[in-house]
Amino acid sequence: MADEYKTRTGDVFNREQYDSLLTRKQFLWQSFEPYGAVKGLFDYGPPLENLEAEVISIWRDHFIRHERMMALKCSMLTPYKVLETSGHVAKFADYMCKDPKTGEILRADHLIKDVIETRLRSDREARGEKVETEEDPKLKKKKAKLAKTATKLDDDVRKEYEYLLATLDDCTGDDMGALIKKHDIRNPVTNNEVEPPVPVNLMFSTQIGATGREPAFLRPETAQGQFLSFNKLLEFSDGQLPMASACIGYSFRNELSPSRGLLRVREFLMAEVEHFVDPKSGKKHPKFASVRDVKLPLLDRNTQSAGGSTPQIMTIGEAVDTKLVDNETLGYFLIRIMQFMDKIGIDMTKLRFRQHMANEMAHYAADCWDCELFNSYGWIECVGCADRSAFDLTVHEKATGVPLRVRENLEEPYEVEEWQANLNKQKSGPKLRKDQGKVEAALLALTQEMKEKLSITMASNGKVEVPVAELESGKVELDKDILSIVKEKRKVTTREYTPNVIEPSFGVGRILHSLMEHAFWVRMGDEARSVMSFKPTVAPIKVLVVPLQKDTRFAGLLSELEQRLDDAQLSFRVDQSGVSIGRRYARNDELGIPFGITVDYESLEGKGYTLRDRDSTKQVRASLDEILEAIEKTCKGKQTWEDIYAKLPVFESKVEEDVKEV
Amino acid sequence: MADEYKTRTGDVFNREQYDSLLTRKQFLWQSFEPYGAVKGLFDYGPPLENLEAEVISIWRDHFIRHERMMALKCSMLTPYKVLETSGHVAKFADYMCKDPKTGEILRADHLIKDVIETRLRSDREARGEKVETEEDPKLKKKKAKLAKTATKLDDDVRKEYEYLLATLDDCTGDDMGALIKKHDIRNPVTNNEVEPPVPVNLMFSTQIGATGREPAFLRPETAQGQFLSFNKLLEFSDGQLPMASACIGYSFRNELSPSRGLLRVREFLMAEVEHFVDPKSGKKHPKFASVRDVKLPLLDRNTQSAGGSTPQIMTIGEAVDTKLVDNETLGYFLIRIMQFMDKIGIDMTKLRFRQHMANEMAHYAADCWDCELFNSYGWIECVGCADRSAFDLTVHEKATGVPLRVRENLEEPYEVEEWQANLNKQKSGPKLRKDQGKVEAALLALTQEMKEKLSITMASNGKVEVPVAELESGKVELDKDILSIVKEKRKVTTREYTPNVIEPSFGVGRILHSLMEHAFWVRMGDEARSVMSFKPTVAPIKVLVVPLQKDTRFAGLLSELEQRLDDAQLSFRVDQSGVSIGRRYARNDELGIPFGITVDYESLEGKGYTLRDRDSTKQVRASLDEILEAIEKTCKGKQTWEDIYAKLPVFESKVEEDVKEV
Repeated sequence: MADEYKTRTGDVFNREQYDSLLTRKQFLWQSFEPYGAVKGLFDYGPPLENLEAEVISIWRDHFIRHERMMALKCSMLTPYKVLETSGHVAKFADYMCKDPKTGEILRADHLIKDVIETRLRSDREARGEKVETEEDPKLKKKKAKLAKTATKLDDDVRKEYEYLLATLDDCTGDDMGALIKKHDIRNPVTNNEVEPPVPVNLMFSTQIGATGREPAFLRPETAQGQFLSFNKLLEFSDGQLPMASACIGYSFRNELSPSRGLLRVREFLMAEVEHFVDPKSGKKHPKFASVRDVKLPLLDRNTQSAGGSTPQIMTIGEAVDTKLVDNETLGYFLIRIMQFMDKIGIDMTKLRFRQHMANEMAHYAADCWDCELFNSYGWIECVGCADRSAFDLTVHEKATGVPLRVRENLEEPYEVEEWQANLNKQKSGPKLRKDQGKVEAALLALTQEMKEKLSITMASNGKVEVPVAELESGKVELDKDILSIVKEKRKVTTREYTPNVIEPSFGVGRILHSLMEHAFWVRMGDEARSVMSFKPTVAPIKVLVVPLQKDTRFAGLLSELEQRLDDAQLSFRVDQSGVSIGRRYARNDELGIPFGITVDYESLEGKGYTLRDRDSTKQVRASLDEILEAIEKTCKGKQTWEDIYAKLPVFESKVEEDVKEV
Repeated sequence: MADEYKTRTGDVFNREQYDSLLTRKQFLWQSFEPYGAVKGLFDYGPPLENLEAEVISIWRDHFIRHERMMALKCSMLTPYKVLETSGHVAKFADYMCKDPKTGEILRADHLIKDVIETRLRSDREARGEKVETEEDPKLKKKKAKLAKTATKLDDDVRKEYEYLLATLDDCTGDDMGALIKKHDIRNPVTNNEVEPPVPVNLMFSTQIGATGREPAFLRPETAQGQFLSFNKLLEFSDGQLPMASACIGYSFRNELSPSRGLLRVREFLMAEVEHFVDPKSGKKHPKFASVRDVKLPLLDRNTQSAGGSTPQIMTIGEAVDTKLVDNETLGYFLIRIMQFMDKIGIDMTKLRFRQHMANEMAHYAADCWDCELFNSYGWIECVGCADRSAFDLTVHEKATGVPLRVRENLEEPYEVEEWQANLNKQKSGPKLRKDQGKVEAALLALTQEMKEKLSITMASNGKVEVPVAELESGKVELDKDILSIVKEKRKVTTREYTPNVIEPSFGVGRILHSLMEHAFWVRMGDEARSVMSFKPTVAPIKVLVVPLQKDTRFAGLLSELEQRLDDAQLSFRVDQSGVSIGRRYARNDELGIPFGITVDYESLEGKGYTLRDRDSTKQVRASLDEILEAIEKTCKGKQTWEDIYAKLPVFESKVEEDVKEV
C-alpha cells in the first residue's frame, strides 16, 4: 500500500541511522527516563526546542500578524460541563477490543489494519511480488509469529482487503465489530479472539479546587475556549465579521497506545484558528483572488471511496468553482497552510490535502480537508481544516442561555406579524412577585406555534397553564386579565445569526516530526554522514564557529566573532575540540547548523573568514561584515545561498576532501 | 505597612479605571464565562496574548540565546513517584483552617494577615492617623462588619502586631496555629473560632493511561523535568560545567483561594533556568566581571528580621564580596534579571530584591533572593532566584539508582588504599546464576566500613551474609572460595560529583500583571484618559493607522500603507471609524499602540505622513520610508523617540487640542 519513504536525495530512509542521530544530538527523549520513562510523553532537547520556537514564530507571523487574527490564550483546565456540552464527554473516545484471556487492550482500528496488512503481505510473498521492508521491527517480530509461511489469498479476498484498508477510516465502532467477526481478526500476538469494540474516553480528568472538587478535564483541543470567548472577540472586532481568533497551546489525550515518536502522544502543542463567518455570505474570503491561481494536490472523497490514492493537481480557484472544495474561505486556508509548510521547509513533494470521508467527519461538519505530510510512517494528518458550521456556538448557547451570536442592523427593516404574549404588569406583579422575571423569560421563549395554541385555550377557558421550567411547579396558571396573547405587527430592524466556523487546526508535534524527517539525508563519502538540512529560517542554531585548529593565536579573533554574533542576535556554537575540522563540520551538520565560519591563518592576516554552506559544503571567503550581512538576510528568509554565491567569491578549500578523509 | 501605589505620573492608582480599561479592551477575563467562570483561570485576549509573546521572545533572547543556555521542553504530566521523591507530595501544601460551623476553608496566613491588619487599621483610626484607602472593596466590606468602631490598641500590642506581619512569611504551620490561639484570631465573616491549621496539597492529580491508571500530577514547577534530563544536558555540553538549561512552560497549583488577578492563579506560565555548577568552584561566574559595578536594591534577611523594609543600594560586586549575596553566580543572575525587567519596561523604581527569611527557604536551599515588583497589591515576588544546592539531583539518584553526576578526569591522579569485595566469577556463576548481577551491584554499594566488618567475619567464619535488597530473601550467603574481601591500592583518575544548582524562576503572569500596572497612567484633560505606555519592543500592536477623516480619496494611500507595514512585518490596526481623530487616538492609546500614522490631505499631495508618539502626543512629519525605518528601529530597541525627534521635523497639529476637546 504505502510508498516507500525516501530522503530528499532519493535514498531509502534508514530509520536506525536517523534515530541514532536524534538520540546522540539530544533532539528528544521519553520523559522521566530515570524513572523508567512514560510512554507518549516526550521532552524536547535544545535542537528540537529551538526548532519548535522558530516554527511557532513563523506561524505567528504567517497567520496571526499577516491575517490580523486575534491571538487568544485559553485555559487548559476545563470544567466538565463545557466538554459535556461540546460532546467530548460522550464521544471523544477510541474503540478498544479486549483480549479476554490476557486482559490486553487493543485499539480496534489498529488491530484490523495490522492483521489485514499482514495477510496481504503474506499473499504478496506467496505470489512472488515485491514486499516493502520499511517497518517497525517490533511489529515485524509479532507478525512473524503468525505469518511464518506465505499464504496466497483468493483474488476476490485480496480485493476486499485492499478496499477495507482504504475505507477503514470511514468505519464506526459497529462497522469495526462486524469486520472483526467477518474476517476472524484476532490478537496477532496470542491468536485469541477479542471482545467487540467498546469506546474508551481519552480525556485526562482532574478536579478544580482543593475542597470544591469541581470535576474537570485537561482540554482535548483549544477550540472550546475560543468559542466561549466569542463575545469578547466580537467586541474586539467592533462587531464585524469575518473575524478569526488563534490559539497556540497544549492539549491532552490519554492515548491507550502512544506510538510512532511524536505522531501519537499524550500532551501536545496545537495551533488552532477559528474563523467566524456569516453563513449567508457564501463563506467568501476577501483575499481569495490573491491565491486563486495557486495549485495544490487534492485527494478527494470519491477517489478514496474508489480505493484510489493519487491526488489531482489543480488551482484552488478551479477546486472551489467546481465545489470540490466547499467554499472560498476553506480554499484560502488550504493555500495558506501549504505556503506555511513551504516556509518552514517541508518537502512540497511530500504534502497533499485529503478530504475526509463522510463518516470520518464530525456529524456537524460541512466539509473537512486534512493537510497530510508523507514520512516514514506513511501519510500523516498534520493539519485538519474543517468547516464546523454553527455547531459549537449553538450548543453552548443552548446549555448556558448566554447568546453567542452576531446582531447586525438591517439596512432595510421589514415588518412581520407574530403572536405576542404580553403580561399586564400591574396585575401580574402582586400575583407572581419574585417569579415575575422567570415567567417573562418563559413567555419570551415560547414558539409561535405554542403561543397560537395558548391563544386558543385562552379564548375558550379564559385561562392557560404556561410551562416555566425555572419554577418548582414547572408551570404557572394565568388568566386573561393578566396575560393577553394576540397577533401583532412588529418592525424587524436587526438580524441575529450564529456564525459558522472554519477551523484550521495544526498539530505542531506531527509537523516537527515530518520536518525533521524531510530535513534528514545522508552524505555519501568514505563514511556515510547524516545531515539535517533545516532552512536557515528555522535552524535551531544558526552559526558554527570553528578555528582551523587549536592555536592560541586565534583567541582574539574568536572572541571578536562571538561578540559580533551576539550583537547581531544570532545563535551560535563554537567547536574548538581537538578533532579534524572535517569531523567538526560533520558532527555539526547533524545539528543542522546552516552556516559555518572558519577562522584560519589568513584570518590572522586580516583576510576575512570563510563561510561554509552546510548542504553543498562549498565555501565563500569574505569580510566579517559581509559574512554577517549574508547570514542575517538568509536567516530572515530574505535571500538564499544562491544570492550569497552570486555576491561573494567562492573559496576552494581542502576541507571538502577532509570531510571524506576522516 | 504598604506604601500607596502610584502610577508613573505620580497619581494615585485608580483601580476602577484600570480594571475598566482591561475589560473594555479585552486584555483578560475569567475563563469559561458563559458557564459562570472558574476562579483562578484566565484567558488572555489579543492585547495581553501578544504582550506575553513579546515578553517571552525577549526572555528567550536575553537568557537562552545570549547566555547560550540549553532550551528544554519537559512534560507537564508527571508521574507520582517523581514528585514523591522531590518532596512535593509531602510538602507542597498550604495551611488551611476550617470554620467548623460553616465548613468554610481559610488560608491560615491570609486569615492572620487579614485580621491583624484590620486591628491595626482600626487602631490608626482611633489614633486619628491617616488610613490608606486603596484596597479590595470586598475585603473592606468584610472588615466593616467587625471593625465598625475604631479600637485603640496598647502601644506594645501594636508593636507586636507590626512585627508579626513583617515576619509572617517566616512562620511554620505550628507557628501560625500558635498565633491564632494567642491573638484570638477568628473567621472575620462569622466571628467563629477556627480549627488549627492543616496542610492541604496543592497539586492537580490525574492518571496516565486509559487502563493502566498510573497516578500522576500536573507539575507544580518545570524544574523536576529539567533535573531528570540532567544526563542528556551533560552530554549536549560535552560533559562541561557550568551549564544551564532553560524551560518555558506551564505549571499548576490547585489554589484554595485564587485571588488578585494574575497574582494567584491555578495554571500559569513559568520560565525557569537551572544553572549547574561544580560546588568546588566557589560558584564563580565567568562573566561576573561584566556586571560587577552594576547597582541594585537589596533588602536582606537581617533588615527584615528587624522589621525594616528599606533596601540598600549597592553594587553586586560589593554584595558578593561581603557575602550578603552568597556567590558570583547568584549575583550575576540578579543583575541579568534586573536588566531583563528594564528591557521589557518594568518601572525600575518599583523593583527590589528581597532575601528569603531562614524558614521561608526550602530546607536544602543555600540562599534565595526574590525579585519583587511593586504594584497595587504591594511588593509581589515575580522571580525567585534560589541556590538549590545538590538536593534534587541527589534524591532522584537515590530513588532511581541512575547516577546524576559529573565525572571528570583528574589532571593529577592519586592512589588510595580501599577495601575491595571481589567475586570469583568462575565459582559464583553456577551458585548465583541469574542473581549474579544483583549481588555484584550490592557488593559495589557496600561502604568501606561494611566491607571492613565483613572481612573480619570472613576471617573468623569463612563465610558472610551480604545484604542484597533486590533479592527476595534480602541477603545471600557467600563463602571465602567465592568472595574475597581485601585491602587494595587503587589509582583514582576521575572525580565524580553532584553539581549544585542555581535556579532563577520567573512567574510570567505576575510579571505581566506588574508590567500592565506600571504601563498604566491617566492623561489629564477635559476628560481623563487612560494610556498604556508599553515600550515599543513589547507593545502588542505596533502601529495605528488613521485617516484624518472618512474620505474615499484616502483609500489608495491606506492600502499602500497596509502593504508596506505588512512587508515590514509590523503589526498594525486601522481605525477608520467615524469618530474624531482625537477620540480614535485616545481609544487606541488604551491598547498601548506606540506609533500612530495619520493620513491627511497633505499625504494626498505626496507630502508624507505624520507619525505620532503615544506618550507625548507629539508628531513628526516624514516620508513613508523614513517613518517605517523609525518604527522598525524603535521596535527592535535600537533607538528611542528621542532619536526620532532629533532626525525628523516636528509637526505642529491641532490634534493635541482635539484630544482635549472630544
